Amino acid sequence: MPEFLELLTPEEGIAKLLHHTNNFNPRSEFIKTETGLNRVVASNVCSKEDIPAFTRSTVDGFAVNSKDTFGASDVLPAFFDVVAEIHMGKPADLQIGKGQACLIHTGGMLPSGANAVVMVENTQYSNSSEIEVYKAVPAGENVILEGEDVRKNDLVLPKGTMIRASEIGALMALGITELEVYTLPKVGILSTGDEIIPPHQLPHLGQIRDINSYLLSAIVEKFGGIPARYPIIPDDKTKLVSSLRRAHAENDLVIVTAGSSASVRDLTAESINELGSPGVLVHGINIRPGKPTILAYALGKPIIGLPGNPVSAFVVANLLLSRIIPKLRGENSSVAKQTIKGIITINISSVAGREDWVPVRLLEEKMNGKLLVEPIFYKSNLIFSLINAFGLARIAPNVTGLAANSEVEITPL
Amino acid sequence: MPEFLELLTPEEGIAKLLHHTNNFNPRSEFIKTETGLNRVVASNVCSKEDIPAFTRSTVDGFAVNSKDTFGASDVLPAFFDVVAEIHMGKPADLQIGKGQACLIHTGGMLPSGANAVVMVENTQYSNSSEIEVYKAVPAGENVILEGEDVRKNDLVLPKGTMIRASEIGALMALGITELEVYTLPKVGILSTGDEIIPPHQLPHLGQIRDINSYLLSAIVEKFGGIPARYPIIPDDKTKLVSSLRRAHAENDLVIVTAGSSASVRDLTAESINELGSPGVLVHGINIRPGKPTILAYALGKPIIGLPGNPVSAFVVANLLLSRIIPKLRGENSSVAKQTIKGIITINISSVAGREDWVPVRLLEEKMNGKLLVEPIFYKSNLIFSLINAFGLARIAPNVTGLAANSEVEITPL
Repeated sequence: MPEFLELLTPEEGIAKLLHHTNNFNPRSEFIKTETGLNRVVASNVCSKEDIPAFTRSTVDGFAVNSKDTFGASDVLPAFFDVVAEIHMGKPADLQIGKGQACLIHTGGMLPSGANAVVMVENTQYSNSSEIEVYKAVPAGENVILEGEDVRKNDLVLPKGTMIRASEIGALMALGITELEVYTLPKVGILSTGDEIIPPHQLPHLGQIRDINSYLLSAIVEKFGGIPARYPIIPDDKTKLVSSLRRAHAENDLVIVTAGSSASVRDLTAESINELGSPGVLVHGINIRPGKPTILAYALGKPIIGLPGNPVSAFVVANLLLSRIIPKLRGENSSVAKQTIKGIITINISSVAGREDWVPVRLLEEKMNGKLLVEPIFYKSNLIFSLINAFGLARIAPNVTGLAANSEVEITPL
Repeated sequence: MPEFLELLTPEEGIAKLLHHTNNFNPRSEFIKTETGLNRVVASNVCSKEDIPAFTRSTVDGFAVNSKDTFGASDVLPAFFDVVAEIHMGKPADLQIGKGQACLIHTGGMLPSGANAVVMVENTQYSNSSEIEVYKAVPAGENVILEGEDVRKNDLVLPKGTMIRASEIGALMALGITELEVYTLPKVGILSTGDEIIPPHQLPHLGQIRDINSYLLSAIVEKFGGIPARYPIIPDDKTKLVSSLRRAHAENDLVIVTAGSSASVRDLTAESINELGSPGVLVHGINIRPGKPTILAYALGKPIIGLPGNPVSAFVVANLLLSRIIPKLRGENSSVAKQTIKGIITINISSVAGREDWVPVRLLEEKMNGKLLVEPIFYKSNLIFSLINAFGLARIAPNVTGLAANSEVEITPL
């Protein structure tokens, strides 16, 4: 297996694939903002208005000119005539003069002549139209000024921003109810193998059900892509090339899983190379599980070849797709990776130069507030070991294992 | 405001609401397993088969009886007659005798008489039908036994399990292509206020656009519920009660946001109490922002009243819905909360007894591999402060603030 003599680390392999993927230009479309959760903004969004559009009170109280409260205290209150109440949702179309105040509610518009609000807690009615104010307020106290949140023409969301609940709220505040976002990337998924049958069928001896197409579809969905499954392909180069061509034409990314025997692996690499240049970039990465991974690029689109072993396919797909799908979605790459720290309960050995990913389960108890995790050991191919996994622990290439009670980085699943 | 005299902590308030929600019985429905990502299993799933259904090889090599390799080494190889090749996807319908081997591929079925596989790397053909084996293998080496992954009638997924990619893979391996899951909870969302108008309209002076309905819909969606927005309600008890009744009848949970002025708050609590018993459980919690929160339960369904201030509504909704929606979804509660640790760059003050949630932004640099975060200070109501927030940092009720360079728990948004 000469291709395995000098293997790249996963990080080096990913960098190579991402370097090519820099040229990928996602399409865009217009959607209703309210449906935009987890979509990515495709053009800079600027404000067309000042927000708030008028100076507002942030408390319940009395709108005043701050000068008139000068020196007011518990022992020496200032007196104000209450000349009006500001009604919610109405313009404050009056002007207050010296020694005058308006009753105002949280969110109410300040009347002309007022520049601050005295909280209701710091006042008392001395008669039905007069209040005593026990506290001086500086100008701007308890108000949000017109345009203080956002100014007209401000850049609110740069292109490439992923939309969360807060972005939806901000867009609604601006009246932006339609939005240009990147089209979600389509990911073609192919499973190969003479022994593979669709899951609804009862296998004969020697056959197994297709796990990988569905496993990978769900991972694609989790990272925000649209999976498209293709029919199972036998171990036949002509048929594989023809299915690959179709999936490559119809999608933004293609993933193909194959048996991990050497002969079938070569078949996959050779078939991918027929799709166009540059073809296979990386054949084999220094990772366990998942060494026989293929990374390729052809005619502006990435292609990934994964081992047929579902556990290997699962680990490598999580690693690669968490990096490549965001790129295809047009996301700014500055989002922090969501890993958590845990303490591993027993020694795990590894090999220098190789990156290991170990499924771990969470223990009920904690240690000094930190999560305790235990590796799940499994024989190759045992998909059911993964249903007990809370996450995958990473053993970096530059260490030869992890000692019991040491800290480990976990990617939750 | 007598209701604020003895405020519960958020945790105490949530416990009260969750205690009532224990009686909630989600409905269930059948779906295709392939569409099941993030759904929750509504009945125990047991295996109807042994997986694998036949003893399989985990490597490329030769299927043998381990006894026949006894003593084999580089200097003293064992010799085997290669009597057949096991083809992928076919039953191995032959019997090997003493000194016989079959060529086998990864995933291939072991023939009768074989109990181990010698890796191809440890063999060499001495002629076209004979191999030399350089390594002894114990029984079971490089094979997965029939039923080793899962046994017929094993409990595979207990009721209440959330379905991830790995669970979809496992279900497909078992041929379970349809599945009973809990129906997603419907969450009715009501915004009240005389000053509130729909986002597509241009506000007159004194009016503001409805942010909260959309903000809360997106948070509900994020936590796996189905939001249903209702028309904006003016500050009028009759209209509020009638809308609440409708939303309460049509949904599993109702959230209503109101202005945070004391008068309107009372209106909300009084209206919620008309829905049935036990009614309002908690009126005000010791949290900033979000003190005027109402937690209620009526006729088997929770109701939440949130402040009209979008930042307060956002913080409290994230906190409450991350706990209540999983319960309405039928999830087992044992999932670890996904928080991350960061180092806060400056002092933040708080008040003993009160829990504070502070929006924080992520700095580019790190400190000893830990994330550095900086609080985003904002005036009440400034929704745009949230679009720069990476997450919310929690200041626990039992401390009076956080010192610069201390560790803080962050809930990513």
